[in-house]
Amino acid sequence: MKFEVMRDRLLEALNDVMKAVSSKTTVAILTGIKIEAKKEGIYLTGSDADITIQTFIPVEEDGEQIVQLTQTGSIVLQARFFNEIVRKLPTNDVLIEVKNGYQTDVRSGKSEFHLIGQDANDYPLLPQMEEDQSFTMPAELVKSIIRETVFAVSTSESRPVLTGVNWQIRDGELMCVATDSHRLARRSTKLEHAPAEEYNAVIPGKSLNELNKILEDNSEPVEIVLTPQQILFKAGNVLFYSRLLEGNYPDTSRLIPSEHKTLVVVNGRALHQAIDRASLLAREERNNVVRFTTQGQSAVEISSNSPEIGKVEEQVLAEQIEGEELVISFSAKYMMDALKAIEGHDVQIQFTGVMRPFILKSVHDDAILQLILPVRTY
Amino acid sequence: MKFEVMRDRLLEALNDVMKAVSSKTTVAILTGIKIEAKKEGIYLTGSDADITIQTFIPVEEDGEQIVQLTQTGSIVLQARFFNEIVRKLPTNDVLIEVKNGYQTDVRSGKSEFHLIGQDANDYPLLPQMEEDQSFTMPAELVKSIIRETVFAVSTSESRPVLTGVNWQIRDGELMCVATDSHRLARRSTKLEHAPAEEYNAVIPGKSLNELNKILEDNSEPVEIVLTPQQILFKAGNVLFYSRLLEGNYPDTSRLIPSEHKTLVVVNGRALHQAIDRASLLAREERNNVVRFTTQGQSAVEISSNSPEIGKVEEQVLAEQIEGEELVISFSAKYMMDALKAIEGHDVQIQFTGVMRPFILKSVHDDAILQLILPVRTY
Repeated sequence: MKFEVMRDRLLEALNDVMKAVSSKTTVAILTGIKIEAKKEGIYLTGSDADITIQTFIPVEEDGEQIVQLTQTGSIVLQARFFNEIVRKLPTNDVLIEVKNGYQTDVRSGKSEFHLIGQDANDYPLLPQMEEDQSFTMPAELVKSIIRETVFAVSTSESRPVLTGVNWQIRDGELMCVATDSHRLARRSTKLEHAPAEEYNAVIPGKSLNELNKILEDNSEPVEIVLTPQQILFKAGNVLFYSRLLEGNYPDTSRLIPSEHKTLVVVNGRALHQAIDRASLLAREERNNVVRFTTQGQSAVEISSNSPEIGKVEEQVLAEQIEGEELVISFSAKYMMDALKAIEGHDVQIQFTGVMRPFILKSVHDDAILQLILPVRTY
Repeated sequence: MKFEVMRDRLLEALNDVMKAVSSKTTVAILTGIKIEAKKEGIYLTGSDADITIQTFIPVEEDGEQIVQLTQTGSIVLQARFFNEIVRKLPTNDVLIEVKNGYQTDVRSGKSEFHLIGQDANDYPLLPQMEEDQSFTMPAELVKSIIRETVFAVSTSESRPVLTGVNWQIRDGELMCVATDSHRLARRSTKLEHAPAEEYNAVIPGKSLNELNKILEDNSEPVEIVLTPQQILFKAGNVLFYSRLLEGNYPDTSRLIPSEHKTLVVVNGRALHQAIDRASLLAREERNNVVRFTTQGQSAVEISSNSPEIGKVEEQVLAEQIEGEELVISFSAKYMMDALKAIEGHDVQIQFTGVMRPFILKSVHDDAILQLILPVRTY
């Protein structure tokens, strides 16, 4: 294997691939990344067994030569070292050459690295994917869907299936649900070209967080390929594979109340900021609890109290308050996460009583629903 | 106590004062900051017993009213909470009022905090300083002196006096020395108005690092007041007090070789970058050691070797090489620290043998001297 490549392009591709490489892996070869030089360009692959990322650097792009290929071939190099070496090379021209078995020379300017590589045949193959089930969404929409749901997954391994986000496709609609059993985030999306068959899978939250870092905030199409054990996202020159979680995701539809006793419409950003301030004095308490009190038909009061530090109260003007007066307490963190997912819009909050879960929606559309369980008041 | 103040100005003053507040203090009242409202303005004081910082917000500055004072007085508030509260207040107008003993109201917009304060009389007084011994330097010069020496202090408490930088004033010259007994940094500065008496003190490295964060990179004068137990830096509206370290600082002048067998002149930045790259493969080794080899009269080779990862070599062109051929090994980190202190200039490196300490200077002036002990080669 021997080729020259532009350092910037190599770094960019490495940046993506490194997101799959974990220093905690028990499989030694997965601490490396696989480099394959083929006629059409260079493939880099990184994996932690759950996530596998492959990026591609074409020989030529828009008339510009990016790779100068002398000899095809492949090698596995220590990911962390190779990445740091490329980052610090003195010039934008990098020559990579395998000789004497697995010894790999990396040259740039007067700098010469002689790295001990490993046999690329020992590196696991990419997951096998049959491509008959797939659909396409713009990258920015995939990112929104992730952002609006993934924060609500469980961080505890006691019910592993809850550490993922449930993706269900039925009747031309993608429904994404995450819950840690104290709160729930749900987002529905109409698909333009939905796959023919129904689909139901649980994608690890960690995979979605890494995917979100790799996707750019633009309208480029992402093709999503569905199989029973794996999901594959294809975006530009990147392939992102994630294993799916095993086990049945609980049916959450019955948790969501269909009627309410109190309805509050309020500016999401103003409420978020007031809760953020109130939570300053709630931090020492278990669960970071703040109190929410309706005041007539035009304001709510956010308050909290820490016996050692002091207390805080703040009025937030409401657009609309209907139904019963209410005093309810909840986790400031859960409420801020939910408001952040709805992002700045006016939000509608529907309460059915001080000990019943309540829901938040944007007043503009029903696509996003956030549900929070209150905390018993003191 | 009751006053209104602009939030931005309060935050700026708090930012400085917070640098002295430690969460690890064993003196409960020092987790707070003292606020004093006087006729001329507001004083904020924070301390961890070693460092004490006082900032001042004047009632009026350049014709602009910054503080509206209703009633003088003083209070101590929990530093961490007060700082976070001020940071998150909704408007730029902040009202602070003490009532019912030590209860302190902080109001901004519709947000009302009721904090539990403490008696300001329980807060330690500022160190007493007699001002007859003092001198003045521009802020940017104080910052340079700190930056060029403080990195070389010892991080081990086995010889506490080495965790500080020795400041000596004699014959109109300030000599600053730091050493951890493996390397040494020395910087001399001619003083325009030196104090009449000689002075010899050891300032904790931690104090100098915090002072460096507070001083701005400009030519505003900093007045430095010297006493046997404390040093005080006055810069604008900030007073920065540091306790001095006890014990005699070792005489380091005899460590510095006066002759050399090999002289190398090389671009500091080019050498720094080559050593940075070589250290990538030296990290797994004890002490991060790289090898430096002269090549004739015009180049040096920087190399390192990690049995598991590979090896690296790089040629750096030298401006000048005189004297004996040399192969020497040293800590990459110490060399990079020393080169950073000399900053980009051409550096002169004087060696007296593979196991003898060597020195680095700028070719342009003698003010900065860096000394490094080599490592026994393998």
